[in-house]
Amino acid sequence: MRRILVIGIGAGNPDYVTVQAIDAMNRADVFFLPDKGSEKAGLRALRLEILERFVRNPTPRLVDIAVPSRAKSERYLDDVDAWHGALAAAYRAAIEAALPEGGTGALLVWGDPALYDSMIRLVERIEAGGLALACEVIPGISSVQALAAGHRIALNRIGAPVLLTTGRRVAQATPEEDFVVLLDGEETFARAELAEHEVWWGAYLGTPDEVLVTGRAGDVAAEISALRKRLRAAKGWIMDTYLARRHRPD
Amino acid sequence: MRRILVIGIGAGNPDYVTVQAIDAMNRADVFFLPDKGSEKAGLRALRLEILERFVRNPTPRLVDIAVPSRAKSERYLDDVDAWHGALAAAYRAAIEAALPEGGTGALLVWGDPALYDSMIRLVERIEAGGLALACEVIPGISSVQALAAGHRIALNRIGAPVLLTTGRRVAQATPEEDFVVLLDGEETFARAELAEHEVWWGAYLGTPDEVLVTGRAGDVAAEISALRKRLRAAKGWIMDTYLARRHRPD
Ligand SMILES: C[S@@+](CC[C@H](N)C(=O)[O-])C[C@H]1O[C@@H](n2cnc3c(N)ncnc32)[C@H](O)[C@@H]1O
Ligand SMILES: C[S@@+](CC[C@H](N)C(=O)[O-])C[C@H]1O[C@@H](n2cnc3c(N)ncnc32)[C@H](O)[C@@H]1O
Repeated sequence: MRRILVIGIGAGNPDYVTVQAIDAMNRADVFFLPDKGSEKAGLRALRLEILERFVRNPTPRLVDIAVPSRAKSERYLDDVDAWHGALAAAYRAAIEAALPEGGTGALLVWGDPALYDSMIRLVERIEAGGLALACEVIPGISSVQALAAGHRIALNRIGAPVLLTTGRRVAQATPEEDFVVLLDGEETFARAELAEHEVWWGAYLGTPDEVLVTGRAGDVAAEISALRKRLRAAKGWIMDTYLARRHRPD
Repeated sequence: MRRILVIGIGAGNPDYVTVQAIDAMNRADVFFLPDKGSEKAGLRALRLEILERFVRNPTPRLVDIAVPSRAKSERYLDDVDAWHGALAAAYRAAIEAALPEGGTGALLVWGDPALYDSMIRLVERIEAGGLALACEVIPGISSVQALAAGHRIALNRIGAPVLLTTGRRVAQATPEEDFVVLLDGEETFARAELAEHEVWWGAYLGTPDEVLVTGRAGDVAAEISALRKRLRAAKGWIMDTYLARRHRPD
């Protein structure tokens, strides 16, 4: 059987890497690296920096996987499903070609593999397709935690819940609870419904380019929006997330 | 000014410690350790093991803080507030006594400081009380992530939200969304309302005693309940958490 390590590398700061992740990287014979093209070059650079710093094996084998792109129709879940099918095929082919039986392959996942990432499902899908794999998951510091640490706040109010959600969902309906938004292509913090919310926003969290903004959404949305456009233009990509709270007695 | 490092040490496995946390521990002159009595001895042992493994300074100064206990009336938030007041006073006294101006103190927090932990609020409260502190927060692997990694699942379904909440809240109303329960003193997984939910439960996550159970809540609740009683009796304490999902097409 082949062993696959799904390793969370943290969401931006190489120092987010855990001792468990370092050990796992040093058990791997082969690293499979997604090749998403130039706009994600910053992320690839972080992956390579982490390998360079923490892998003691002087010549780990790196295998690039060309990542197909996702169709963007009206049917989001169908698009994702077709895309995952194509991804699973690409990963399976690479694993079968580069990893011998009994070998250990590593997949480096941005942040925590349990949060808005498809790698665990992909490995399951490859197994369901008939390739036997022993899979291990190593958690990593997520962008949600980087956001809270950067702002020095707790995610939850005392005894209260917090919802982790997506820009797409928030655009459909404003959650009742406090919520953290990932994958926010739509600048949902600028929606009229959120004007009275308090927001804690951050981009490039954990990196030297980290930016933090906090305030009443109605007051800071324009500033965040301008920052996003400027930074995205300058760097070619942006990753941002925010926590939002309705005004309520704490 | 005094510097306070609030360091997440991960929720059970010493290998969850990050490179950032190790560096932070090595910047500290004094570690403040809560002394909660014998029932939490297991947690204290983990803290000491982490210091022993990762602190290169041969004789870090350890200062025990006697932790007052929380009153348990019908008014939960009032009880917590009074308790935090007493805690802040105890920490402030210890910091003023043991940490000179310009010194760096460390507070080791179980899991991630941003999740159902009072340390960040406590430091804020001490500052609001008039003691100037420069505070830094270092994120750590939370029990929620240890749960997902142990079960090798994602916390969210594709594009869907996930709620982080408490046993107290779930006992009041079953969330619509998928949810993770912390602080579950009430075995909420055994509630009739949850019988048709799929649950992924785990205790002592990340430790050699980790136990995982998964299945339809109606089928596995009795088993989990029996396990909890037996393990708690054997070890003197238990920490458990679970993810629950309504049946819905994935
Ligand atoms: C596909 S999700 C992956 C999340 C990742 N698994 C994690 O644990 O953070 C990508 C989203 O995470 C958020 N994100 C990831 N890294 C970030 C960072 N360094 N700063 C701000 N947001 C980040 C953004 O909302 C981005 O759209
Ligand atoms: C006061 S909260 C602290 C949470 C912590 N800050 C974290 O990030 O995991 C304590 C609750 O976390 C959960 N928990 C913490 N460590 C755990 C572990 N190793 N296994 C299972 N549950 C754990 C339990 O639900 C417990 O009641």
